[in-house]
Amino acid sequence: MVQTEIDVLGIGNAIVDVLSHAEDSFLDSHGLTKGAMALIDPDQVKTLYDTMGPGVEISGGSAANTIAGLASFGGRGAFIGKVRDDRLGEVFAHDIRSLGVRFDTRPTSDGASTARCLILVTPDAQRTLNTFLGACVELRSEDIDADLVEASAVTYLEGYLWDPPQAKNAFRKAVEIAHNAGRKVALTLSDSFCVGRYRDEFCALVAGGADIVFANETELLSLYRVDTFDEGLQAIRENCEVAALTRSEKGSVIVDHEEVHVIDAAPVEHVVDTTGAGDLFAAGFLYGYTRGDGLAECGRLGSLAAAEIISHFGARPDVALSTLV
Amino acid sequence: MVQTEIDVLGIGNAIVDVLSHAEDSFLDSHGLTKGAMALIDPDQVKTLYDTMGPGVEISGGSAANTIAGLASFGGRGAFIGKVRDDRLGEVFAHDIRSLGVRFDTRPTSDGASTARCLILVTPDAQRTLNTFLGACVELRSEDIDADLVEASAVTYLEGYLWDPPQAKNAFRKAVEIAHNAGRKVALTLSDSFCVGRYRDEFCALVAGGADIVFANETELLSLYRVDTFDEGLQAIRENCEVAALTRSEKGSVIVDHEEVHVIDAAPVEHVVDTTGAGDLFAAGFLYGYTRGDGLAECGRLGSLAAAEIISHFGARPDVALSTLV
Repeated sequence: MVQTEIDVLGIGNAIVDVLSHAEDSFLDSHGLTKGAMALIDPDQVKTLYDTMGPGVEISGGSAANTIAGLASFGGRGAFIGKVRDDRLGEVFAHDIRSLGVRFDTRPTSDGASTARCLILVTPDAQRTLNTFLGACVELRSEDIDADLVEASAVTYLEGYLWDPPQAKNAFRKAVEIAHNAGRKVALTLSDSFCVGRYRDEFCALVAGGADIVFANETELLSLYRVDTFDEGLQAIRENCEVAALTRSEKGSVIVDHEEVHVIDAAPVEHVVDTTGAGDLFAAGFLYGYTRGDGLAECGRLGSLAAAEIISHFGARPDVALSTLV
Repeated sequence: MVQTEIDVLGIGNAIVDVLSHAEDSFLDSHGLTKGAMALIDPDQVKTLYDTMGPGVEISGGSAANTIAGLASFGGRGAFIGKVRDDRLGEVFAHDIRSLGVRFDTRPTSDGASTARCLILVTPDAQRTLNTFLGACVELRSEDIDADLVEASAVTYLEGYLWDPPQAKNAFRKAVEIAHNAGRKVALTLSDSFCVGRYRDEFCALVAGGADIVFANETELLSLYRVDTFDEGLQAIRENCEVAALTRSEKGSVIVDHEEVHVIDAAPVEHVVDTTGAGDLFAAGFLYGYTRGDGLAECGRLGSLAAAEIISHFGARPDVALSTLV
């Protein structure tokens, strides 16, 4: 790749996670869909928080987790996302900056508080996300620093950005700047329900805007309304330069127009919490990609990072990922 | 023991911990004493926070950790401590109440924010505490609910309460109410430097106010200014009804006027973070004590809880301790 100042610029929702153990019956009694991300309003936050167990607060946000992971590998990351000037906003900013990530987005000084995601981890290590978007809804085109996008080899966008009403304009502006500067754009489909909400726009993005697409199996099937992984694989292959398709314990499949690489999942002694598995896969993959590794090696680095993140609570690495390479 | 509504009422500083990995060189460069608790002011919080690595926020506070552990065993706990009506105050209150603990202390609505403890965990799993007391300094005698103290079999006090200027009055009031009601008072010496700051008062408390005393080896040696564990043991034995003396991987020694029990540490596969080891030892011990177990069994329960807490980040149990018994 062309040498740039930043390897990957992530643009996404800036969220602090509140993680807690929960039984399946708790999800049922609150009508929550296991494994999915649901948007909740302040009243729902209060109801859910008041009844859930003790929590652990750890910075999160899908693209932010990916950039934190990239930095933990030793990559040069930047992030754009909106927090408020409150305590959780400080926590988010501290946690990502302390990894050496450039994060300059101006926080809001009024309106909703910094976003929180109440994450319920069931005994099977599956995570169910309940997101209060808070200050994230204030992300605007003006928050996209054109110089920063131009200085980044890859601009990485999360599909979740389609939920805050204004953010898609920021998203589209970033894509345009990146492509005009000859940079790559990567997109993660984020969540199968999110794909369901914005299928047509996501299809257009995959076909026209994104060079590299990350998707898990259910997102892929939802995007193309197909029944088998292989049908989805053939469809996405036609549409984008590189697709990195993750399949949980079955590993991942990385495809471009010429090659197909089937990568095993890295071994994990005990899966504790799957929060962030996809985000960290993308971190490892993009770390390899921006340093010029082949696709198979990119996939292997993704698997390594995903394995680390699911072995403990929370979606930020517990050890420097550079020590695992 | 006499049947009471509450097994253990804890009174202590209400703190949210911010835990982060750090190298020994980081402690050196900031002039921090490994393994100790240092009080820091808002400027020092800012300096330290700005330079430390990414954090994980988990409710803490020594006596609060003990009560959380007691509740996790299935004991009936209550807590008195001061937070502000801010986000971290909500986090603290949520986390302890969600375990079934009664926590009714009125939060402050102005002045300093909820207390934070910046905890640096070095590669040897040792923790170094840097506490900003914040709203804790507002704890007053008026916050002691006499009915609650009378309804509690044991009132458990942390030596750290000597640091906020007014809290010792609350502390003394609680001791008086408990003893007048025929209840037991337990005290933890908290920290060897804390013992150094208030040695005479602590000696008087151990001799006159506390029925059960928890101390680790360095706190014991500091209290009596002696050189050997055995000298300390003989001294404290004369002074209080029961002393539970913890010695890290060497286990613990429980003594009363008649008996001495030497309890092995429970096995731990990998020690990750020693934060809360003493707090959780006290949790297990008091859970056994208030259900009428013999001292050896109390010590065994303490070891079990301590082993659980040092096997992961943070000073609140990661599994229901009741499942370990």
